[in-house]
Amino acid sequence: MLPFDHSSTPLQADEHYMRIAIEEAREAARHDEVPVGAVIVSGNRIIARCHNLTETLTDVTAHAEMMAITAAADALGGKYLTDCTLYVTVEPCPMCAGALGWSQIGRIVYGASDPKRGFSRLCHDSITPLHPSTIVTTGILAEEAAALMTTFFRKKRKRKN
Amino acid sequence: MLPFDHSSTPLQADEHYMRIAIEEAREAARHDEVPVGAVIVSGNRIIARCHNLTETLTDVTAHAEMMAITAAADALGGKYLTDCTLYVTVEPCPMCAGALGWSQIGRIVYGASDPKRGFSRLCHDSITPLHPSTIVTTGILAEEAAALMTTFFRKKRKRKN
Repeated sequence: MLPFDHSSTPLQADEHYMRIAIEEAREAARHDEVPVGAVIVSGNRIIARCHNLTETLTDVTAHAEMMAITAAADALGGKYLTDCTLYVTVEPCPMCAGALGWSQIGRIVYGASDPKRGFSRLCHDSITPLHPSTIVTTGILAEEAAALMTTFFRKKRKRKN
Repeated sequence: MLPFDHSSTPLQADEHYMRIAIEEAREAARHDEVPVGAVIVSGNRIIARCHNLTETLTDVTAHAEMMAITAAADALGGKYLTDCTLYVTVEPCPMCAGALGWSQIGRIVYGASDPKRGFSRLCHDSITPLHPSTIVTTGILAEEAAALMTTFFRKKRKRKN
């Protein structure tokens, strides 16, 4: 992993932070957790990096984004993340999108879409769980993030059969 | 508070547990937290009782329901709450509804509706953040739960002016 270069283009910066989120997702997979990773950046500083821990903690709320929101608020000493960007490997679910809405996060960047479990399927007629001022960017390193999920669930199914 | 009477009708039982959730909401108000309380019941046993702690913990994810889900899973030693009922004084927000969806909770009973921040506004064309087998009952001690919220926000506005 190259260090963050301040002369990077916005896309290069997004890919840089998404790569760190993907590292987190790989760490989740190593512990037999659904491979989702999340990073929260404030300025050019990473203030939270987490991965899914629902199995380890026996807790459905322990998604990567949820823990990143809690850790980022702790790092900032305030519960609103208006000047922060969340990088997450997969589209947030409704729970995480709702939490991101409460946090008033400035920007969300996600990799792979999740048509089955992602929050987008709930959005209709300009109603969304996100805060109205949150900017959303999608598709950053999407294939890599999606491949991690596909491999994980394929292995799980094989073990079951 | 009378002890739970096993000869109660289902409505009486719902009101019994909702009264405990309202006690939790009052406790939240005493600590200047938005007054929402939640109780999770398995069989006739209360396995979690919590109130909103977002200000105390500086954490937007610290809603009464979220903490109750985590506490209930901890009490049961498993992350699914299929045989449990959640009693919550106010309609859950999208974050909490999403978490309840992941938990596959058997039943949700809420008091006051929340047309502005409740999860229902996201539901459309049979798409919902809840698990398809979760039964929802609404309006139990709704006026009492709503009055707590109205009083709280009226006081907050007065202090601001």
